[in-house]
Amino acid sequence: MIDNQKLATLLRSFAAERDWDQFHTPKNLATSISVEAGELLELFQWSRGQKDWNEVSDAAVRRRVEDELADILLYVIRFADKAGMDLQAIAERKIASNAAKYPADQFRGSDRKYDE
Amino acid sequence: MIDNQKLATLLRSFAAERDWDQFHTPKNLATSISVEAGELLELFQWSRGQKDWNEVSDAAVRRRVEDELADILLYVIRFADKAGMDLQAIAERKIASNAAKYPADQFRGSDRKYDE
Amino acid sequence: MIDNQKLATLLRSFAAERDWDQFHTPKNLATSISVEAGELLELFQWSRGQKDWNEVSDAAVRRRVEDELADILLYVIRFADKAGMDLQAIAERKIASNAAKYPADQFRGSDRKYDE
Amino acid sequence: MIDNQKLATLLRSFAAERDWDQFHTPKNLATSISVEAGELLELFQWSRGQKDWNEVSDAAVRRRVEDELADILLYVIRFADKAGMDLQAIAERKIASNAAKYPADQFRGSDRKYDE
Repeated sequence: MIDNQKLATLLRSFAAERDWDQFHTPKNLATSISVEAGELLELFQWSRGQKDWNEVSDAAVRRRVEDELADILLYVIRFADKAGMDLQAIAERKIASNAAKYPADQFRGSDRKYDE
Repeated sequence: MIDNQKLATLLRSFAAERDWDQFHTPKNLATSISVEAGELLELFQWSRGQKDWNEVSDAAVRRRVEDELADILLYVIRFADKAGMDLQAIAERKIASNAAKYPADQFRGSDRKYDE
Repeated sequence: MIDNQKLATLLRSFAAERDWDQFHTPKNLATSISVEAGELLELFQWSRGQKDWNEVSDAAVRRRVEDELADILLYVIRFADKAGMDLQAIAERKIASNAAKYPADQFRGSDRKYDE
Repeated sequence: MIDNQKLATLLRSFAAERDWDQFHTPKNLATSISVEAGELLELFQWSRGQKDWNEVSDAAVRRRVEDELADILLYVIRFADKAGMDLQAIAERKIASNAAKYPADQFRGSDRKYDE
């Protein structure tokens, strides 16, 4: 379980104590998600994926990956909290929508991005 | 609550049914988070944040924002599931680490990114 | 003028001297552009654009912006060099295509992203 | 050669005709570069780089890659034009700075991002 209410409350206090709520516009939080996503991606910048998940087995690398993943999750939770969005509901709805968009029998084993 | 175990299980089935697990390397999932973050950001590309959270009050805009936010969350959950990372634990650890990095009395009301 | 041939030649030597050409796949260079774009964006993470271009008047900020902009440009030039693409030609073609997509009389003063 | 003056002039007219100059703040142009970088990256989302540069040999793929690359370049040129930055000068300066940061004899054949 992710206790997003608990995390959202911690983030509200964090922002309130620093008077940072004023900076938390939709655009700035979307910007922050993108910035943190770039920092996560940087950890794999030159990788060609050949080591698969062994790539995150080293403890120091793993820690950095966890920190970036956490940053992204926290900004997603902050955004949803500010906008009054129910993350569990929209995530389930999106999975259902993806299942309809990519029927298993038509997309098996294919990464047909270009063919869409 | 976000039932990330439930969502992770749905995502595992989704990938297995399409034989897409092979594409889910750390780099490709980090790439996917970045791509979806870019799609969220695009919804605010020309905004200057002046409407604050009214910017997501229109139903059609709101729906698009929710879908992009869901995509990001789902890839974060998929990444953590593949890597065996505990999202609640790393999120709480990151909030504690941010609190130490940005003492409230030194950063109040300031967006001093440039001064770091 | 941007002497992209000169810059591409410098980048070729740079990669050859470090045996880094092997890492310069299309995906890795696209990744690098995204990573650097995130670093540029980070410099404006909490800005709400109110200072307009005065935001880059401070010498230290300006220098950081220039460095990130340069990184992006260099990866774009490297990508085009590896792929044999003519940047001037594709840039002019894209401007013409944008002009057709956004007729001036229909889009004047509007940031109608949501209406597309 | 990239005739960035010519392209910058075309972009100025493009913005003026639509009264879009007001949207071209540093943050919004940095946002736009990130958004377009995400669109380029999406074309390689599931790739593991195994086809190397054959990945962009298909004409339709190539065209999409060119269009995204052009968008990024155009926003870089627009940013530099608005900020009064000399792209050739800052690109050459950045290559020199990178050469000092990554001495060839210490980084040969290595993608030591994690060791930095």
